[in-house]
Order: sequence, then C-alpha cells, then structure tokens
Amino acid sequence: MKISELSAASGVPVATLKFYLREQLLPAGRATKVNQADYDESHLRRVQLIRALVDVGSLPVATVREVLTAIDTPDLPLTWVFGVAQLAVSDASLYAPMEEETAGTEAVHAAIERLGWHVSPGNPGVQGAARVLDSYERIGHPELAQIWDGYAAGAELIARADLATVAARDDVQDMAETVVVGTVLGDALIASLRRMAQEHISNQQFPANRSAE
Amino acid sequence: MKISELSAASGVPVATLKFYLREQLLPAGRATKVNQADYDESHLRRVQLIRALVDVGSLPVATVREVLTAIDTPDLPLTWVFGVAQLAVSDASLYAPMEEETAGTEAVHAAIERLGWHVSPGNPGVQGAARVLDSYERIGHPELAQIWDGYAAGAELIARADLATVAARDDVQDMAETVVVGTVLGDALIASLRRMAQEHISNQQFPANRSAE
Repeated sequence: MKISELSAASGVPVATLKFYLREQLLPAGRATKVNQADYDESHLRRVQLIRALVDVGSLPVATVREVLTAIDTPDLPLTWVFGVAQLAVSDASLYAPMEEETAGTEAVHAAIERLGWHVSPGNPGVQGAARVLDSYERIGHPELAQIWDGYAAGAELIARADLATVAARDDVQDMAETVVVGTVLGDALIASLRRMAQEHISNQQFPANRSAE
Repeated sequence: MKISELSAASGVPVATLKFYLREQLLPAGRATKVNQADYDESHLRRVQLIRALVDVGSLPVATVREVLTAIDTPDLPLTWVFGVAQLAVSDASLYAPMEEETAGTEAVHAAIERLGWHVSPGNPGVQGAARVLDSYERIGHPELAQIWDGYAAGAELIARADLATVAARDDVQDMAETVVVGTVLGDALIASLRRMAQEHISNQQFPANRSAE
C-alpha cells in the first residue's frame, strides 16, 4: 500500500508517518518509483504499536525507539527481555538510580528477603519502591508502608499472569513484543482495575455511603 | 519559622515556595512584619505533600491544586473521597471519557458482571481498562486480554489493603489525605512491586536464564 493508504488504514496522518520514517521508528517501505514506496501489513502493525506506546503508554518518542530496538534485536534471553522492557519504561524520575541508600532502600531489601523473592539490585522496581516508601515517611504517612504485604501478594498474582501470557507465545521475538507491550500497557490496566476494585470494596465495607450514589 | 527556614527544612528553594504561595497551593503564613510571615509545622507538611505529588506522583501543578482542595474540604463521605482522588489522577488521556462504546467497554462491563463487582459507569477505571483492551486488540495482541482474571485477583488484594489502611485513620480529613496520597503514590509502588515480582517469577520459571546474570 502507498503511504496515503497506510495513513488511512492506521488513522495516523501522513506527516506523522514521515516523521516516524525519518526517526527510524518505522522501517522504510519497498521503493517502487522515485518518491514512492510500498508498505505492507508489518508496517501497519508497527505504526499501531507506536501509537499504543505513545497514546496509552504515554512514552516519549526516544523511549519508543529504545523499545522498538529491543523488539527488533534477535535471540534475546527472556529475563534480559524483561530487563529491557522494564528499563524502557524506567526513565521516569521514579525509577532513576538513587544517589545513596535511604531508609526506603533498606526497607525494600528487608521486605524482599522476607518474601523470599529473587530480585537483582539493579531492578528498577527497587528504586521506585524505595522512593515511594521514603515519600510516605517524609509526608507524614508512615502507616502507608504497612500496605506492603497486601500489595506484594497482589503484585505476585499479577506477575504470574504476565509470565503465563508471555510463555504462551511462540518465539522470542514475539515474547519480547508481548513483554514490552504488556509491561507498558499493563501498568495502565492494573491502575484501572485498582480503581474499580477500590469502589467495589469501599461499597462493601462502607455500605452506608451507597445512598449518596 | 521564616520562609528561609521553611526552605531549609523542606529542601525546596524559596522561589518555589513563593510560587506555591502565589498559586495558593500553600496557605499564607501568619504575617509578622511587612514582607515577613511565620510558618509552622502544618506548612512544612503541606510543602512535603506537594513535592511528593509532583516528584513521585508526577502530577502537574493544576492537578495538585485539585487534590489539595479535596483534602481541605471538610466532611466528605468516604466513597466520594475515593471518587475525588481517582478523578484527580484521572486527567491523563488514559481515563478521559470515551466518545463512544467500544468492544473494550463491552468487555469491561462483561468482566465486572462476571466478577460480581459493584462499579459505577463513571469510574475512571472503566474507561482506562477499555482503552487498554482496545489497544491490545488494535496492535495485534488480543492474547493480552486473557490476563484479565489474574490482574483482577491481584487488584482486589491491593484494593483490600488500600481500604484497610484508610479505615485505620481517625477522621475523614485524615482519611481523605490517605486516600489521595495512597492512590497517587500507590500506583507507583504497585508498578515497582510488579517489576520485582516479574524478575522473581521469571527466574523461577526460566531458571536456565539465571546463568546470564
């Protein structure tokens, strides 16, 4: 298909598609004439993946490029793929390496030990969790740290579902894409489900408030 | 304390504190002389809360203002407080109301029914989850939608922990603050725990890859 047809099929303006081509997010089409190229289903799927990462995952274009590079790298070991996916969505200030160990870092390491989890020190979640615990303390809500065990149990169920979905894919290339998409979009789905579950359980536990609906 | 002391105690520059005062995020201090005011512990705590919402919650200043207004409104019913907290962190494109029902919306309503959850149609999680399901389909990963049951079970454990923490607070004002802080920062903590749990379970299920560490 021509670039105008790729635009119509994907709902992405031609100018944006040209930007993706210049930025090498989208592979060049097969040249047919001077200034004309042919695009296929793989281009359409790639454009849709880019839009999903930008629109739903809220990733900046530079991060999208890193993610796509990871997907396009052949023969990645699976734990490494998880690492790339995690790092790709980890340029936020939440996950940046901390300059020094804090009370939060210590609490996270102690909790990992207690749970018996095998987690490397470079896992971005360690920095993220330590930052949140430090914030709870600093803003006078240390009681929120006690939420840890309930959250960890929930996160374990979620991660098992993640792994089962990845393991069902056929090849590593396909697994890598599922990991990246599932990691980025999964955070949004989990946050959405949490909001629904909060309303459900708040209605169960505080039924008097239901009359206000 | 003077504004310079509030700056030293909070680690926030005086210019930023003056910006918070102008934007009415921070209540004015008690005037002592012309151009001088006295700040107390409540100001310090408020500054720390603002920093946490901006730095860890990644909320824009306008959203921080909405959240603080909710906290400062007396006598909110608890389900309403949850609603405000959810909406405050819901101006992202993820949670915006959708123009029309999609296959994702239908799938979310069917899943809520199956789970027996009591969730109102205006819950921002409904829009967020529908958007993610639509994206999974559009980018050619419909298999990711099957992750729903594992995620829902995890979200329910997480929401129970949220509610238990809120219910332990003494008054509604305090509950409101816990809901808002816990909703915003909790998303970050859950995403962090998910990354750690993914590594742990991936190491359990694919032990061959551990040698690469």
